[in-house]
Amino acid sequence: MTADPANPEHPERAAVAALADDFLTRLREWIAIPSIGADPAHHGDVAGSAHWLADALRADGWPEVAVWDEGPALPAVHACWPSADPAAPTVLVYAHHDVQPVDPLEQWEHPPFEGVVVGEELFGRGASDDKGQVAMHLLAVQAHLRATGATAPAVTLKLFVEGEEESGSPHLGELLDRHADDLACDLVVFTDTPMYSRDAPTVNTGQRGVLGAEVFFTGGTSDVHSGRAGGGVPNPATAIARLVAALHDADGRVLLPGFYADVVEPTPLERADYAALPFDEAEWLSANAGGARAGTGEAGWSTLERVWVRPTAEVNGIQGGYTGPGLKTIVPASASVKLSFRLVPDQQPAKVMAALREFVAANTPEGVEAEVVVRGDGVPAYAADVTHPATLAVHEAMSASFDQPVRYSRTGGSGPAGVLHDRLGVPVVYFGATLPDDRIHAPNERVVLPVLLRGAEAAARLWRLLPERLS
Amino acid sequence: MTADPANPEHPERAAVAALADDFLTRLREWIAIPSIGADPAHHGDVAGSAHWLADALRADGWPEVAVWDEGPALPAVHACWPSADPAAPTVLVYAHHDVQPVDPLEQWEHPPFEGVVVGEELFGRGASDDKGQVAMHLLAVQAHLRATGATAPAVTLKLFVEGEEESGSPHLGELLDRHADDLACDLVVFTDTPMYSRDAPTVNTGQRGVLGAEVFFTGGTSDVHSGRAGGGVPNPATAIARLVAALHDADGRVLLPGFYADVVEPTPLERADYAALPFDEAEWLSANAGGARAGTGEAGWSTLERVWVRPTAEVNGIQGGYTGPGLKTIVPASASVKLSFRLVPDQQPAKVMAALREFVAANTPEGVEAEVVVRGDGVPAYAADVTHPATLAVHEAMSASFDQPVRYSRTGGSGPAGVLHDRLGVPVVYFGATLPDDRIHAPNERVVLPVLLRGAEAAARLWRLLPERLS
Ligand SMILES: [Zn+2]
Ligand SMILES: [Zn+2]
Repeated sequence: MTADPANPEHPERAAVAALADDFLTRLREWIAIPSIGADPAHHGDVAGSAHWLADALRADGWPEVAVWDEGPALPAVHACWPSADPAAPTVLVYAHHDVQPVDPLEQWEHPPFEGVVVGEELFGRGASDDKGQVAMHLLAVQAHLRATGATAPAVTLKLFVEGEEESGSPHLGELLDRHADDLACDLVVFTDTPMYSRDAPTVNTGQRGVLGAEVFFTGGTSDVHSGRAGGGVPNPATAIARLVAALHDADGRVLLPGFYADVVEPTPLERADYAALPFDEAEWLSANAGGARAGTGEAGWSTLERVWVRPTAEVNGIQGGYTGPGLKTIVPASASVKLSFRLVPDQQPAKVMAALREFVAANTPEGVEAEVVVRGDGVPAYAADVTHPATLAVHEAMSASFDQPVRYSRTGGSGPAGVLHDRLGVPVVYFGATLPDDRIHAPNERVVLPVLLRGAEAAARLWRLLPERLS
Repeated sequence: MTADPANPEHPERAAVAALADDFLTRLREWIAIPSIGADPAHHGDVAGSAHWLADALRADGWPEVAVWDEGPALPAVHACWPSADPAAPTVLVYAHHDVQPVDPLEQWEHPPFEGVVVGEELFGRGASDDKGQVAMHLLAVQAHLRATGATAPAVTLKLFVEGEEESGSPHLGELLDRHADDLACDLVVFTDTPMYSRDAPTVNTGQRGVLGAEVFFTGGTSDVHSGRAGGGVPNPATAIARLVAALHDADGRVLLPGFYADVVEPTPLERADYAALPFDEAEWLSANAGGARAGTGEAGWSTLERVWVRPTAEVNGIQGGYTGPGLKTIVPASASVKLSFRLVPDQQPAKVMAALREFVAANTPEGVEAEVVVRGDGVPAYAADVTHPATLAVHEAMSASFDQPVRYSRTGGSGPAGVLHDRLGVPVVYFGATLPDDRIHAPNERVVLPVLLRGAEAAARLWRLLPERLS
């Protein structure tokens, strides 16, 4: 290992510093390609983005680079850089290069596809989610080689950067199956999550799963005048409200049968870490909860725990009867509710869906007909094992790079980590250096460059540490 | 009293039979005037309808006839025919000449404004509600004079036929106040309700009141992504569902504080009458309840009682969050519910509204802001006293005219009987001879002519009986 003489304890930091200008130029160039996967008019840009990435990897010396553009999936990029040591572990970095739409455009203070730098921040769609983090990995590999003085990484590195994450990764399973050999690995490093905050860097260790369904209640075939029959016939809107009310007990626990049977609680170490994180409820509500006035939820758990490690049942939408202006004295013929369940390990979407059907059947009153429509297969939750050597190595690399205590955190949203785990049959760890207030999916997305560079340093360090830690 | 020699027991029946042809010609002429009060394009027709009625009354010999067209109320008709006996009671007949719109026009089997006769039925908008019943009264007065051989009615008759009933009688109180002298009376005969059925003629004795309100629950200022905050913040859609679920207990009783405190239950006689009426639940549901699959409601009361004499809380509409196609995993910022309460004597709309506000305040969870918007002042319920001599006289007149046992019934809808009672300070009795399956407010409205003629006979008889029964 070649230590930078100016920075003997931080060879990766010195290497990152030396490469930082090129990194920024390159990321701004990539951000300029509007790879909006949700908009068919931009599918050419998604392909352009994939080819830009492939070219960048080739320029960096990655020996195997391919754009997978076989359809129906939008173009994904795959690359591999074998370690010189055939016994070294193989690590697959997962990320994505498609970006969210930019509406409402008028709310952007800088053009979303120009990569404007203001102070420490780089603004643009994808700056944080997820081009910034992919570029961070490219930089990290260069820095790793420079810091170690080697011509190949210490681990066999594979990169898989898909183009449909923002669309829910509809063809991910198909890609994983078709390219099973190319993607075979010992560990997945999942790079599409943030840290807790700049002042409290964390290793993310999990995402919740999600399952959506719609319940339709029907009484008669048409609305009924409430003067004629009100009080004498079932009211599907009242019935759907009662169904929703029955979803939780007074402690905020979800009452689907067996809902908590498979729930794995976080370890005491994780709970202690969550409790140690700086948390200001009012600030959190304003940043995360659209101005909600109070944190509430399942009894016995903190707000962070409620959104990170506890499963939920949420009403996303409810509708029934007359909803125009003024009043119409009817008993509605039908009503419906859109529900989503955030899941945690080891809840299985299919099992929760079966429990929902059972719950709906038990809560359908006489004279009402129920229909449950499932929205997709759901996304399973995933949590990294905090005692696994790979997780510990990430923690070690982050701790050495951020010069601050690093804790564990999770995120409440969902992603394909569980799918990667299930299909590839290997552990998944999360690695990310973006921030929750980067305004991803919103106007004025940005990334904080010094934080991202520390992330690159940590990744470079991780590749150096992993062969020994996993041995 | 001059008895018809051909029909000594039924002088009124014979008189009605003699006048029936003219009656039909006249009613068909009136139906041809499309007096749709809800449509400003037809306000000229509402005036035309009022003048048609005034002319008909004058032609019949009514000595005092006026069209009240002072605005803002649509034209109403007032007439008076004093009894020869200055000591005779004064009776005010209330009815209306405005009609409902005819959409959807394509569902009419006969043109709505032509008065087509098919067998015993006369089809047309207003044939039953309420022109048919007004024409019935005109015929009844003629028949009364013919049957009694007198030149003036046995009671002082006043007629008040308003032009805004189908619009909720928004200026009725104003008219009653402005014309207090013209409308002064000892008894109101309210003619805008049906009997139970052709095979089970009834005297209606009450209508429910109604009160509408909308409840808005707000959490934050914008929808929240359920992955970020779901489980940690209040969900206004869940909260509004819980509010609705809390509206009733398991027996279907309404849980607003004090909701039943002022409720006057029907007399044992009335309940016995309701129980004796022919009732087929499946038939009733299909005719009245838009194909509802089962009758349900407050425990301890029959379906007819639930819709006639019991107060209700109904959800007319509920809305919150995302209601478009597919799924959107949000915690909605807000949700709302439109509620209406059917009231019974002696519930006061203002008191129920205060109870609703109290109930909403008690059921608004932490972090949610509630707003209750009242829709109008509500309409109070009204019930005629079944022991009052006027009610008994109506019962007697109907029994003699329909040749069948006559029972008491009520209707579940609302009307201005309570307003008339409160402003004029006199008892109100109901008198009607239409049928619940006349399809009022719907395409193919009709009236069954032989039934309406029996109604005219009963009214004629009523005017003869009343002086003695009220003395
Ligand atoms: Zn992402
Ligand atoms: Zn009417």
